[in-house]
Amino acid sequence: MIITVPLVLYRHGTEVVAMEDRCAHKAAPLSKGRLEEGGIRCLYHGFKYARDGACVEIPGQNALPKAACVRTFPVVEMNSWIWVWMGDPAQANVAYIPSTVGLEDPHWKMRAGQIDYGAHYELINDNLTDFTHVSYVHAESFGATEEFARTRPHLEPLERGVRIWRWLYPGYRTDSFAETRDGRVTTFESFETYEYSIPGILAMRTVLCPAGTAARFNEGVPDLGAVDIIDDRFSSQAVTPMTARTTRYFYSGGPRATSRDSDSNLDERFERAKQAFIEDKDMIEAQQANIDLDPQRPQVLTSSDIAPMRIRGLIAHLTKQERERSAGADSAKP
Amino acid sequence: MIITVPLVLYRHGTEVVAMEDRCAHKAAPLSKGRLEEGGIRCLYHGFKYARDGACVEIPGQNALPKAACVRTFPVVEMNSWIWVWMGDPAQANVAYIPSTVGLEDPHWKMRAGQIDYGAHYELINDNLTDFTHVSYVHAESFGATEEFARTRPHLEPLERGVRIWRWLYPGYRTDSFAETRDGRVTTFESFETYEYSIPGILAMRTVLCPAGTAARFNEGVPDLGAVDIIDDRFSSQAVTPMTARTTRYFYSGGPRATSRDSDSNLDERFERAKQAFIEDKDMIEAQQANIDLDPQRPQVLTSSDIAPMRIRGLIAHLTKQERERSAGADSAKP
Amino acid sequence: MIITVPLVLYRHGTEVVAMEDRCAHKAAPLSKGRLEEGGIRCLYHGFKYARDGACVEIPGQNALPKAACVRTFPVVEMNSWIWVWMGDPAQANVAYIPSTVGLEDPHWKMRAGQIDYGAHYELINDNLTDFTHVSYVHAESFGATEEFARTRPHLEPLERGVRIWRWLYPGYRTDSFAETRDGRVTTFESFETYEYSIPGILAMRTVLCPAGTAARFNEGVPDLGAVDIIDDRFSSQAVTPMTARTTRYFYSGGPRATSRDSDSNLDERFERAKQAFIEDKDMIEAQQANIDLDPQRPQVLTSSDIAPMRIRGLIAHLTKQERERSAGADSAKP
Repeated sequence: MIITVPLVLYRHGTEVVAMEDRCAHKAAPLSKGRLEEGGIRCLYHGFKYARDGACVEIPGQNALPKAACVRTFPVVEMNSWIWVWMGDPAQANVAYIPSTVGLEDPHWKMRAGQIDYGAHYELINDNLTDFTHVSYVHAESFGATEEFARTRPHLEPLERGVRIWRWLYPGYRTDSFAETRDGRVTTFESFETYEYSIPGILAMRTVLCPAGTAARFNEGVPDLGAVDIIDDRFSSQAVTPMTARTTRYFYSGGPRATSRDSDSNLDERFERAKQAFIEDKDMIEAQQANIDLDPQRPQVLTSSDIAPMRIRGLIAHLTKQERERSAGADSAKP
Repeated sequence: MIITVPLVLYRHGTEVVAMEDRCAHKAAPLSKGRLEEGGIRCLYHGFKYARDGACVEIPGQNALPKAACVRTFPVVEMNSWIWVWMGDPAQANVAYIPSTVGLEDPHWKMRAGQIDYGAHYELINDNLTDFTHVSYVHAESFGATEEFARTRPHLEPLERGVRIWRWLYPGYRTDSFAETRDGRVTTFESFETYEYSIPGILAMRTVLCPAGTAARFNEGVPDLGAVDIIDDRFSSQAVTPMTARTTRYFYSGGPRATSRDSDSNLDERFERAKQAFIEDKDMIEAQQANIDLDPQRPQVLTSSDIAPMRIRGLIAHLTKQERERSAGADSAKP
Repeated sequence: MIITVPLVLYRHGTEVVAMEDRCAHKAAPLSKGRLEEGGIRCLYHGFKYARDGACVEIPGQNALPKAACVRTFPVVEMNSWIWVWMGDPAQANVAYIPSTVGLEDPHWKMRAGQIDYGAHYELINDNLTDFTHVSYVHAESFGATEEFARTRPHLEPLERGVRIWRWLYPGYRTDSFAETRDGRVTTFESFETYEYSIPGILAMRTVLCPAGTAARFNEGVPDLGAVDIIDDRFSSQAVTPMTARTTRYFYSGGPRATSRDSDSNLDERFERAKQAFIEDKDMIEAQQANIDLDPQRPQVLTSSDIAPMRIRGLIAHLTKQERERSAGADSAKP
């Protein structure tokens, strides 16, 4: 289920097929059906559909009405995720898929999880594009101090999202000691940069390095080749709207394959991240309940809301643009 | 609760009384009340009602307002079922009650059960008037092959329903061997005929006989007196709409009293039928969920939908007719 | 949550603060926040509010927009209960708070409990202002006979409620024996008087005395100083509307501090009262379900509905009056 459209996904060889999970006959879900040579069969009254959604068999009837077809969606598998284009198929574009790190990528040690939210997906987008909350929601789990919340990251608008980067200094964390590659214990700082893309994809890199590195780069974007990297981590996260009040959140994360972190360390850190995401879920679902008491009431915006508002605005703009293009294409038809 | 009207049913001697389960005073349910000599008393504030729904006592008050009455419904007990007429009482007609087999009928060995559906009752009517689904939903439980789904039964419109009959040939079942009355094991075929009546009553007879019998009758309706009957079974089923999304399904079934089937065989077969009905429930509730995502979206109809559409059409037609007759009767009043 | 407004309550020294449980920034609940010197901090993005609801800190931003404030409510702690004025603050008046008995009152031995109803609060007001139901709903738990239901109490309108009093005679109870202060067992009768005040506060006194006392006072209000009191009991109850279908019911009760009842007797009697309140809850929630099937359908009123209708009328009248006064005050502003 994405944006209230039920979906059935299946593999045909290496190809992934995405169809509406709804038989044209009587709306039974095809996901209760059966994969067969040449398609999928609804197991209510036996309608069979080819991969393009056309009905190829109605038991006991030769005529196959044109209307007896199921909607299909452009779909791509990339970096361990399946990307379904829910809009006008003519406007689907693989280039819109943000660059993330797959679970099988040999350069990284990734772990993956997912959480279902009882909230509108834009509240989760808001959360992920404004990390101010880390100091309050995740003070324990991520060990962030309030000093972190008092600084603003750098923002760069992207065509379909926003880039957010900053240096995290030792005072931003309750624990800021790390072991360097040559075995010394040092105070670290980290360079954190992520792109947040439509409709809700986060691709974040966090590079830990000895305190003082930021100063060497005038607190700007560092030349990572010239940095004494203590640890280099990536996280991919995808906010998937199911209904107006349910959202599935996929996430993965881990360090470089060369990381000296033990598996149990990585497990522990990944589990801590999950606990933090559950903290977000608790807060956001409570927020959603309050919003639903009076949905039209305005928010009071702050300087930390620039990125969240950029994403909301882009979604509204691109949705409108896609509709206009579809309408234009339709009216241009002979 | 039938068509969102709460009901309280009770016996007064051999008479069954059906009243709205709602005290005229403050809407408390009379089913939480107490049967007394001469009526039923609401156990909230003590209003007492006679069997005709008139209030006969208000504690502490002599005046009994005319409005203090409870709606009653024409009700008949027949063949182990209680039939309540929810419409205009002036139009109630015992002749509308379809002929079914009661649990106490000495000619049959009936067993009974019930299942609640989270779905609109018309979806269950659709299911029961198009057995194509048996090949897909009940392939295991009822052992039907796809060959069964590829044939269409004979349909005969009835004034308040439809008659559906057909011969089931050995190829329609994964297991089509049976023991004859004289102890031989033979391939059987069966003649299946049922009437489906408004608002959702199925009365079905299934006669098993040796393969070849259908051919003797030119595949038409057989003269059962001239058939070597292996087994003769009856099933009564009643689809009772409670609310727009809840329906209670009553069912019973069994063979002739003379059947040589053991009780454990019958128990086993009845349990298998229940499992099959739960397969229907799973499918229909999933179908309902899909429909509710977009209720106005049209179905694609097939040749197997003639009987379902006949029943839907009859319900719409008879409902309209009943309302017009009531309106006509009202306007004819002096 | 009162009348669908989420509330956070906290103490600042001896002062109680009541604020809307909704951060002005993104509607997160302040009840998930943190009390700090000088106010309460939202633990989503760190907004901090003073006790008057003004925002005093936004992390990382100097500007504090005027709109970044949280609604506060006049609040008073009195007799163990916290009274929040949900309406126009200018019209709040401590004199509106009915006189009840607190849990710490040295003259009484009070016990307290609470129950949540899945029903509109006016149904509970109706219940508490018409004790006719005691003979039916609480026949077992409170030992009331139907004779009780056949008599009407005396009613006196109050400016913001109604006073209801009556003598309860031995025939009204299945058990009407009690021990007097000098150790004799006697038949008792009781004088029961309560005020029921807007929006739903019950303050009831029940005085047990030897049979015959009512006659000495011509069945009128007795001079309690001239009565041989066997037992003297108080109960305070508060019906608190949370949403249109949820209501929190607070109750307390007990005898004079001088009562010779043992603690276990009092525990047992208080537990019995709780069971009775659960009987009310069962009935009222079933009543609510029936009402919701057809909300506009009229009730049939009786002579026992005078007090319930008085309270409903007062609530409608005072709500309208408060709104008009607020509107008048607004338009009188320069």
